[in-house]
Amino acid sequence: MRRREFLHALAIGAGAGWITKFAQSGGGKRMADRSVVVDTSKSPHAKLRSIPISAVKLRDRFWQPRLIALQEVTIPTQYELMEQTGRIDNFRRVAGKVGGEFRGLYFNDSDVYKWLEAAAWSLAVQPNEKVADLMDKVIAEIEAAQDADGYLNTFFSLERKNQRWTNLRDMHELYCAGHLFQAAVAHHRVTGDDRLLKVATRFADHIAQVFGWGRKEQPDGHPEVEMALVELFRETGERRYLELAQFFIDVRGHKRIGGSPYHQDHKPFRELDEVTGHAVRALYLNAGAADLYAETGDETLMAALQRMWRNLTEKRMYVTGGCGARHEGEAFGRDYELPNERAYAETCAAIANILWQWRMFLITGEARFFDVLELALFNGSLSGIGLDGKSYFYVNPLADRGRHRRQPYFECACCPPNIARLLPMVPSFLYALGDDGVFVNLYAESEAELTINGVPVRLRQRTDYPWDGEVTLQIGLTQPATFAIHLRIPSWCERASVTVNGAEKREGIGGEFVTLKRQWRDGDTIKLSLPMSPEFVTCHPFVESNAGRVAIRCGPIVYCLEQVDNSDADVWFIAAKVESDLKPVPMQIGNLPVVAIQGEGVAVEPSAWDGKLYQPLRKLATKLVRFTAIPYFAWANRDAGPMTVWVAKG
Amino acid sequence: MRRREFLHALAIGAGAGWITKFAQSGGGKRMADRSVVVDTSKSPHAKLRSIPISAVKLRDRFWQPRLIALQEVTIPTQYELMEQTGRIDNFRRVAGKVGGEFRGLYFNDSDVYKWLEAAAWSLAVQPNEKVADLMDKVIAEIEAAQDADGYLNTFFSLERKNQRWTNLRDMHELYCAGHLFQAAVAHHRVTGDDRLLKVATRFADHIAQVFGWGRKEQPDGHPEVEMALVELFRETGERRYLELAQFFIDVRGHKRIGGSPYHQDHKPFRELDEVTGHAVRALYLNAGAADLYAETGDETLMAALQRMWRNLTEKRMYVTGGCGARHEGEAFGRDYELPNERAYAETCAAIANILWQWRMFLITGEARFFDVLELALFNGSLSGIGLDGKSYFYVNPLADRGRHRRQPYFECACCPPNIARLLPMVPSFLYALGDDGVFVNLYAESEAELTINGVPVRLRQRTDYPWDGEVTLQIGLTQPATFAIHLRIPSWCERASVTVNGAEKREGIGGEFVTLKRQWRDGDTIKLSLPMSPEFVTCHPFVESNAGRVAIRCGPIVYCLEQVDNSDADVWFIAAKVESDLKPVPMQIGNLPVVAIQGEGVAVEPSAWDGKLYQPLRKLATKLVRFTAIPYFAWANRDAGPMTVWVAKG
Repeated sequence: MRRREFLHALAIGAGAGWITKFAQSGGGKRMADRSVVVDTSKSPHAKLRSIPISAVKLRDRFWQPRLIALQEVTIPTQYELMEQTGRIDNFRRVAGKVGGEFRGLYFNDSDVYKWLEAAAWSLAVQPNEKVADLMDKVIAEIEAAQDADGYLNTFFSLERKNQRWTNLRDMHELYCAGHLFQAAVAHHRVTGDDRLLKVATRFADHIAQVFGWGRKEQPDGHPEVEMALVELFRETGERRYLELAQFFIDVRGHKRIGGSPYHQDHKPFRELDEVTGHAVRALYLNAGAADLYAETGDETLMAALQRMWRNLTEKRMYVTGGCGARHEGEAFGRDYELPNERAYAETCAAIANILWQWRMFLITGEARFFDVLELALFNGSLSGIGLDGKSYFYVNPLADRGRHRRQPYFECACCPPNIARLLPMVPSFLYALGDDGVFVNLYAESEAELTINGVPVRLRQRTDYPWDGEVTLQIGLTQPATFAIHLRIPSWCERASVTVNGAEKREGIGGEFVTLKRQWRDGDTIKLSLPMSPEFVTCHPFVESNAGRVAIRCGPIVYCLEQVDNSDADVWFIAAKVESDLKPVPMQIGNLPVVAIQGEGVAVEPSAWDGKLYQPLRKLATKLVRFTAIPYFAWANRDAGPMTVWVAKG
Repeated sequence: MRRREFLHALAIGAGAGWITKFAQSGGGKRMADRSVVVDTSKSPHAKLRSIPISAVKLRDRFWQPRLIALQEVTIPTQYELMEQTGRIDNFRRVAGKVGGEFRGLYFNDSDVYKWLEAAAWSLAVQPNEKVADLMDKVIAEIEAAQDADGYLNTFFSLERKNQRWTNLRDMHELYCAGHLFQAAVAHHRVTGDDRLLKVATRFADHIAQVFGWGRKEQPDGHPEVEMALVELFRETGERRYLELAQFFIDVRGHKRIGGSPYHQDHKPFRELDEVTGHAVRALYLNAGAADLYAETGDETLMAALQRMWRNLTEKRMYVTGGCGARHEGEAFGRDYELPNERAYAETCAAIANILWQWRMFLITGEARFFDVLELALFNGSLSGIGLDGKSYFYVNPLADRGRHRRQPYFECACCPPNIARLLPMVPSFLYALGDDGVFVNLYAESEAELTINGVPVRLRQRTDYPWDGEVTLQIGLTQPATFAIHLRIPSWCERASVTVNGAEKREGIGGEFVTLKRQWRDGDTIKLSLPMSPEFVTCHPFVESNAGRVAIRCGPIVYCLEQVDNSDADVWFIAAKVESDLKPVPMQIGNLPVVAIQGEGVAVEPSAWDGKLYQPLRKLATKLVRFTAIPYFAWANRDAGPMTVWVAKG
């Protein structure tokens, strides 16, 4: 399909009559139906199947403005920055279109691929001619830069041709290749156009000739190609890509690239029991292994993944879902090493966490994986992009003195296009399909068209989630149909209640799904009540930075105290009165309506600490203060000043 | 004087009739009078003069048992370990007495010199034939190993002769030389014997030929020689050693050895405003610069020292007086970076802190320097040696899960002989002499013989300090004399009261001296009351590890909760009820009577945290517990288990 036709089809799909058309098409091979982020439709060891991005139309005030800004602001400004920094010229240079030297970091191709992936998925959210034009233009530059043998890496393609694949540990060639594959898969799924997919398969075939048992037996220092190859297998049906993914999992951990935990090369994957080393790499690797499991059912992979999941969620993850305690090596720390001001918590690592959790959820259908996904989505990853849609955090500290501010771009610009590719995936996270029906994972004002057990079903969510826990789910059917609806009760919610058509009251427990299985009729209405009130959260006493402190959470949102809202005291000097009530209050941050939280505390004057590091508790005069907490993701969008997630108990 | 005569003189001095003899001798050039640790008697820019170690006879239950164990256990066992590890053989090998390879680390000579310094000072505390014999034996080995040109370093003396002074940054040759000089000065001051001093001056003269402006213009990577050279100048009167010390201060900070903060080579000394890099090196350097100031009055040195003192005490020092936040580089961290479990707080760094503070105090007569000295003495350094006198901490964490235990020795054995040389200095810390009288710095049951304004004075302290703040100071005089007695009111004490002969009541403020100037008569009795009760101490909120937490202090002693005393709960899970009273209770730890502190708190069952990293505060059931805190220095002498200095507020 050509691009114009594709845009036309999308435009029709997004219009008023799309439900009818969709029902008529029988949920078959329509282009837009294939915009699934992880395609488990044929995976023998995954319980759930992803839905297409295009199947959900968000109508909410939380995500929808972000997705509009993605196409209006984020994607165009990132494109401009890629041009300004020579990232696209590096491709033109290899194609002989421009001269000069290679510019920037040796893995800058990956930023272009991630941007392409973002652009492709965004078109499944909403057609946009400008984005589609840019996408086409960039794809043409990439196509022209591919070597005759299929190799493609603008750092190595010309003068460093003889250095190809000579330093797997450091040079990120397979990492870049992986991002190309993911972009190509996204582009193909969304547009049906196979131009980029052909570039990808040519390169993948080249890699398959170079790597494998008896050939080059080394993994890449930066995992990524593993999950990309599994998706490439899913998209093409070519089993050799799956085998190559398996090879890259199996060849790692045998000290063939130095044996460091930083590269996850210290132990064979199946023996891992802790998330270690570079956090993004560790979590991308886990996502790749999960993808491999979905296809092979290799339980030794799953056992390692489960051990690492426990280690991550019980000992090494920030309360925001952020990952990576250490600046040194952008790495996971020891158990319970979770500093706040010095947190690394790279935006990419929170995204990697989401990508892994999404796969674990699709494989198992267990709510606990989606709980972590939701946490990282609303907090640790979303903080990575400013409300302007064009400023970014690479590092996401949980406390700051007002020095850490979002930047337009980075020399190592992995995070901006990563958050750009994550955002358009959100619609597809709302639902997943199981053997007996549909899983409702995430709540947002939206309309969806799904095919459940072969029957086209329209699902309309009415809710102000994440600011409110009341959700109405209305079912649209052309004829009655029997299937299960599994409603996720988030782990932050202790006890939920559900009614169908105002009756049949059911209770749900946080961290589980409530299953409603019956014959559904058009207009049936489910009301889900997830009691959501602000509360103090406490941390395992082994986390030294948080002993004696509390954080504030309301629903899936983690809060922080930012100075601009707190004139009573320096927010670092406030101690919360945990016996007092926390009160939600509506507030506007820039153009974003949010629910802020007010509470009471005590504070000392900072001057009481002038020239002192320690002093008797009895000497410290405190005053009563009120404090206001805002969603952590929204901090650093206004005047610079101190911020903290964790607050001392007063 | 030969050794036998010396022992005889000491034995007489220590006997019942010593006051009379001392008075008769007029306080003149008697051997024992010269056992001063830092000899400021002729320093034009020091307000105070040290007193000889031998002038004070401790009779207390805190220090005296340590000093007996020093000679009975510590010095002999360290000697045995030096033999076993080849440290003495390295000298014998250079002298051609034994064969084989150089053994151990390239700076192991320094351990021998520090041991010698400890042995020498210990003989000023108490004669001991066995220690004196060992000392003589080791000195003979050192003498025999000196090269004809004066050079002395057993790592370089033979096969690496042509590598001498080729790597100042890393190889610690001047550091080792400095410890030789300090040992020689101590040995000469205590015994009057100049054998080791001659070795030292020959080596120092050699160094003066090699180093200096227009010659080799580099400092050592590990400061130490600076203070040693000033003391060597003081002991010999040879001004070239002072000039050499000045050179080593001035040549540093000009990137001649790489320019790293780790080596304090990033900035000229006079521009420093933060304590940075390797903590022991930084503080030894400051001690050397202070010594230089005492002789030269160079105010640019003092200004830098004052800036660094503020930075240390206001932002980078542990509540124990320990120094060095980071394992990486054994280094100071950033401002307010003071982790507890991962504290480095090397024993040597606390000792270096004491050595610097002692010099600052002698120069200025200001109590604040002695306050820090006292803190580091009773806590951060004393924790470095076990109650058995033969087990050591290199690293002194402020929290632990029961894994950190004292060791008999270390491959890098800098700390054991360092604490051994510190302990016998303690008697001399009790007093210092000023122009108008005597400063009483530290309290301990003791008898002292001092010459104040030319008049022999006997001072008898009756006290159970540090366990009790009541001190009686009785004055012994052969005739009435007018002089000032300056009583230090420690900063931990808000308000002290003083009476003379039961009358003349005076008040004193913590952190200052109370001055009593009058004509004193034999038998005059001063009573000093330093109200001492256990209290909670809080930390600057910028210290992330301690926000929302308290420590417990009573007088100069900092406490910790150790598991062996706390059966109610895991001490890491206890939160202290800060509104409840803390109660001192007598307790015995091994052979040491201490005052423990009991308090009330709440605790959660550790099982409440099974499989969880975060949870709502409301879900945590707590129970009331009583806790017992013991002096931090005494931890890890009984059953292994969790320990913490900082406790959450309940």
